[in-house]
Amino acid sequence: MDHLEKLCLHTITTKPWPIETAAKKFRAAGITGISVWREALIDRNPSHVGSLLKEEGLEVVSLVRGGFFPDRDANRRRDAIDQNKRALEEAAALSAPLLVLVCGADPRQSLEDSRKQIHEGIAALLPVASDLGVKLGIEPLHPMYADTRSAINTLKQANDLAEKAGSDQVGVVVDVYHLWWDPDLEKEIQRCAQLGKLFAFHICDWKVPTNDFLNDREIMGRGCIPLSRIRKWVEAAGFNGYKEVEIFSNHYWQTDQDQYLKEIIEAYKHNS
Amino acid sequence: MDHLEKLCLHTITTKPWPIETAAKKFRAAGITGISVWREALIDRNPSHVGSLLKEEGLEVVSLVRGGFFPDRDANRRRDAIDQNKRALEEAAALSAPLLVLVCGADPRQSLEDSRKQIHEGIAALLPVASDLGVKLGIEPLHPMYADTRSAINTLKQANDLAEKAGSDQVGVVVDVYHLWWDPDLEKEIQRCAQLGKLFAFHICDWKVPTNDFLNDREIMGRGCIPLSRIRKWVEAAGFNGYKEVEIFSNHYWQTDQDQYLKEIIEAYKHNS
Repeated sequence: MDHLEKLCLHTITTKPWPIETAAKKFRAAGITGISVWREALIDRNPSHVGSLLKEEGLEVVSLVRGGFFPDRDANRRRDAIDQNKRALEEAAALSAPLLVLVCGADPRQSLEDSRKQIHEGIAALLPVASDLGVKLGIEPLHPMYADTRSAINTLKQANDLAEKAGSDQVGVVVDVYHLWWDPDLEKEIQRCAQLGKLFAFHICDWKVPTNDFLNDREIMGRGCIPLSRIRKWVEAAGFNGYKEVEIFSNHYWQTDQDQYLKEIIEAYKHNS
Repeated sequence: MDHLEKLCLHTITTKPWPIETAAKKFRAAGITGISVWREALIDRNPSHVGSLLKEEGLEVVSLVRGGFFPDRDANRRRDAIDQNKRALEEAAALSAPLLVLVCGADPRQSLEDSRKQIHEGIAALLPVASDLGVKLGIEPLHPMYADTRSAINTLKQANDLAEKAGSDQVGVVVDVYHLWWDPDLEKEIQRCAQLGKLFAFHICDWKVPTNDFLNDREIMGRGCIPLSRIRKWVEAAGFNGYKEVEIFSNHYWQTDQDQYLKEIIEAYKHNS
């Protein structure tokens, strides 16, 4: 992979940069895709940001993130659905075709109850998502996040849930960080694509050793994820969308972001 | 669960206590089972420790832990097998009927290669294990340990591997900490028992939030693992062995160990 046409960066990857800076830096580096975290939109008008990104020559790949549907308290579940409707409106204003869902989990109830509430939450969002023309992407999260972040922890579960939603509007986001360990990964990538639900592909690496549950991800090629192998599975399944670099890293966020961006691009060319 | 006949503690749970102290404290508290970590045997004769535990009225449930078979370097794989043979001899000297295997993983190679080497390592140990009358228990580890600790990350994989070993000497260790999130858990517990391979059952809880990858486990009932539900699955499958409390916790190791032991026993009575 030595060209950048399908390279997308998440704004969180270079978190210290405001989105206006990130947009200029990404484009100057030859990047054409950007996935926008909602945090990057604080105190901004999403339509204006969408126009700015378009003028900069960037394609908005997704808005990150909606979800967090489960809660033992029904009022809080309704609040979550309202929050997600606002996220869908933001996505539409940004011209983002996809809202990425981190589905959520409530440790005070069973995973099965959380999964049921995730299904219900997605069903409640579907009419709004369809009206706005924004797709919903279920991102299965690593099992180490099953306590509070997601009760959907394998690609099989995400595929099942997306299938159950019964709408072309609902698909799946494959992130190597969460799924690399899964012995069923190749099979479920194929199934996801056959269902027409392989909506997005996120890349980074698993640092050895990892010291923080959230913010210790690695640049591609520096950890133990067999990234080029997984990319080949995804491409063989027919996916030809953006490869989205999503790195949370307390370490890299403290370094010079221009240098870090250069390293990401080199890593993308040689290790993705 | 309000009786203690099937309660076993791992020596690592009360790590600050030397094994001689742990033995007296466990027995005084009414505990009858002990699983011995190899670290607790340093500078000691395993036969003498075995006699001491027996005199104290404790049944040795297992020796923890062998394994760590994979390595890209064949010499180091041979060393690992030698190490495991010594562990089996220690287990026999202690009168431990089971050696728990944390299978290992080498992040410099694929998980498939590591799994192949785990299979080969177990096959190489089998004759010694049979001669000594010590069983081998494959413990699947949480996927967050797939980088360096184990390429066996689900109960299905452990069952498959134990079945492939083709010997009654090889079975599986079910630890709720590693497996609670798995949607196939009930099914694979049943399968494990039907195969005659459900050798051991480890309990603790998943702390919310967990801040350390290794040593931040919780006492039963204080986290989010549906422990009584999993215990019922294990018992319904026919398991009637010890419930082994295996807690690694920098927090609890810094507290008064007598008080901590009391809390473990209360938790076992009410939340297991």
